[in-house]
Amino acid sequence: MGRKERKTSVIEKKKEVTVSLENLGLKIYEQMDKGYFPSIEMPSRSTENIYYDPNFRQFILGDRKVRRTARNIRHIKPFTQLVWAAFFSHELTTQRKTSTLRDVYYSAQAYEMTFKDQQESNNIITDLETILGFSREDFNIFPEERSAVFGDLTIEYTVPGYEGKTLNLTSHPDGVLIGPALTSSEFIETTADKVIAIEKGGLFTRFIEESVHKKFNAILVLTAGQAPRATRHFIRRLNKELNLPVYIFTDGDPWGMHIAMVIISGSANAAHLRELTTPDAKWSGVWATDIVNYKLPTDPLDEVDVKRLYELQRDPRYKDPLWQREIKTFLKIKRKAEQEAFSRYGLTYIVDEYLPAKLKETK
Amino acid sequence: MGRKERKTSVIEKKKEVTVSLENLGLKIYEQMDKGYFPSIEMPSRSTENIYYDPNFRQFILGDRKVRRTARNIRHIKPFTQLVWAAFFSHELTTQRKTSTLRDVYYSAQAYEMTFKDQQESNNIITDLETILGFSREDFNIFPEERSAVFGDLTIEYTVPGYEGKTLNLTSHPDGVLIGPALTSSEFIETTADKVIAIEKGGLFTRFIEESVHKKFNAILVLTAGQAPRATRHFIRRLNKELNLPVYIFTDGDPWGMHIAMVIISGSANAAHLRELTTPDAKWSGVWATDIVNYKLPTDPLDEVDVKRLYELQRDPRYKDPLWQREIKTFLKIKRKAEQEAFSRYGLTYIVDEYLPAKLKETK
Repeated sequence: MGRKERKTSVIEKKKEVTVSLENLGLKIYEQMDKGYFPSIEMPSRSTENIYYDPNFRQFILGDRKVRRTARNIRHIKPFTQLVWAAFFSHELTTQRKTSTLRDVYYSAQAYEMTFKDQQESNNIITDLETILGFSREDFNIFPEERSAVFGDLTIEYTVPGYEGKTLNLTSHPDGVLIGPALTSSEFIETTADKVIAIEKGGLFTRFIEESVHKKFNAILVLTAGQAPRATRHFIRRLNKELNLPVYIFTDGDPWGMHIAMVIISGSANAAHLRELTTPDAKWSGVWATDIVNYKLPTDPLDEVDVKRLYELQRDPRYKDPLWQREIKTFLKIKRKAEQEAFSRYGLTYIVDEYLPAKLKETK
Repeated sequence: MGRKERKTSVIEKKKEVTVSLENLGLKIYEQMDKGYFPSIEMPSRSTENIYYDPNFRQFILGDRKVRRTARNIRHIKPFTQLVWAAFFSHELTTQRKTSTLRDVYYSAQAYEMTFKDQQESNNIITDLETILGFSREDFNIFPEERSAVFGDLTIEYTVPGYEGKTLNLTSHPDGVLIGPALTSSEFIETTADKVIAIEKGGLFTRFIEESVHKKFNAILVLTAGQAPRATRHFIRRLNKELNLPVYIFTDGDPWGMHIAMVIISGSANAAHLRELTTPDAKWSGVWATDIVNYKLPTDPLDEVDVKRLYELQRDPRYKDPLWQREIKTFLKIKRKAEQEAFSRYGLTYIVDEYLPAKLKETK
């Protein structure tokens, strides 16, 4: 990989974000300067305007637009809130401070900007994402949740106080937290030839202890349940910037399947964003057919599991034969199994037998 | 701090754990060798045998004993399960592999050892803790949850592949995960003179960004809600081995209070253990009186909050005047506030004004 090429990606994007926030302000200023009531147009995020796009392999927004104008008295409040959100995002990114959605809600009060509740401020941040096409993490608004990564990848920080410092992601054997600093780092060097994402913390630690990163030349990512958006973006970067194939291992149940699917194809409520998916990533198990083939210890599917499986069966993201086959198999065997179930064959069976078999099968 | 002295603590304890597991096996073997049905005695963990001890400042077990003997046909199953759990813990610790409670449940099947459900295997592990006086983390059985730490502390790993390697806990600005490797590391060197524990991830990141670790010479610990047991033990070690005072900052509500209390005085269901508490740690806020004094944005207490406050009011751990005063104030103002509420005065107010005031007040 070209070091130079990498080094520009994160820094360039930060600049783009700042410029696009400033352009938004400029546009509003120019409208007022010309004596117009300022207005902003954006794609509608209502359910009727969300479509699954087979090319992008994710949900996208259709052609319906929403227009906010200061001329309309009912629009003045959300319009003002939006302008404040853009201003505050600009403050965060230029001052290089991070925040959370909860924090944004309270920070508004420092500016005598009132939001009825956090849902209202969250919506305004999503409006800003929709208008500018960047995700809130690009505005330095991060989720509380943190997951982790481990493997031979050297990164270079861009955050204040750490600029130019590098870290190899094998430096801490409990894994390296994926927070704002790691997310905004440049990828410098790796010997890995694949990414293995794992749902459970215990198994992530097992994989490190059993040197899966060395034996399989892999960068290991812990999703810790549903992967936080920052982690999904991080997995995408590993795939796109380093050309590494991504294999996802989850529990063998509808919720595990969906953890994999959201990494692969994203979610409907991020239909306005393009950088949270990894369409070429593979769900490598635990499949319903694995439960049968490996004779795993199981629990019965409960009512909620079954309901969820029928929902997924109709979901456009699940139309591929493999997913449909696995959904059908779950419904047929009426059982589910956790990743840890492989321990019935000994603690290292999952690494020694199951993992290589599945990597080969889903290559 | 003496480097030599530190270096022995973790390694010595590991040896003690192995020896005590082996002694348990030896004792059972000797009983059988003499022609006796083997038996084991341990303190009862039933509610009637749990007392709050003002000296230990935690719950402890009383004098009631439980005896398991292979002579009693109803005891044979739990007795066998216990012996297996001790064997499996010995395997884990000597082979230096880690596990989770979930994993132990499934692993049993590899030995044709059946547990009805995970609750049953969890109970047997707790029996083993009670008999030997070590916690399950000492047997390499770790929780899934991970929290994080950041600050000038150099540690030395003892886990395979990393023996003798050191890491400074400022090396990753998102924080360093507190997992099995960090938990089992030796503390080598620090310039910090206090520990600040924080409930929320967003605020932990804010503290790092605002250099709280430098400005206040502090090691920052993220509890990420209720602190996992490994983190509580880690905080205790920072306090006992490095003589660092511990200040805990949580949300201003009964749940935040209790996060602090469990770090300080532990929980009733760990009454059989002594190494999960930090009795001298201070709850430094957000207090109910802070809500009043700092005029924080609040939410009303709901029914569950109020019920919880009345429970805490009667809890022996909460008998000190400060806790009682804060509980009364919550009940009087009928409001609660989150840590992020300070952002109404600007993002750095909490670090610039509130934190130094509270560190002074609770010194």
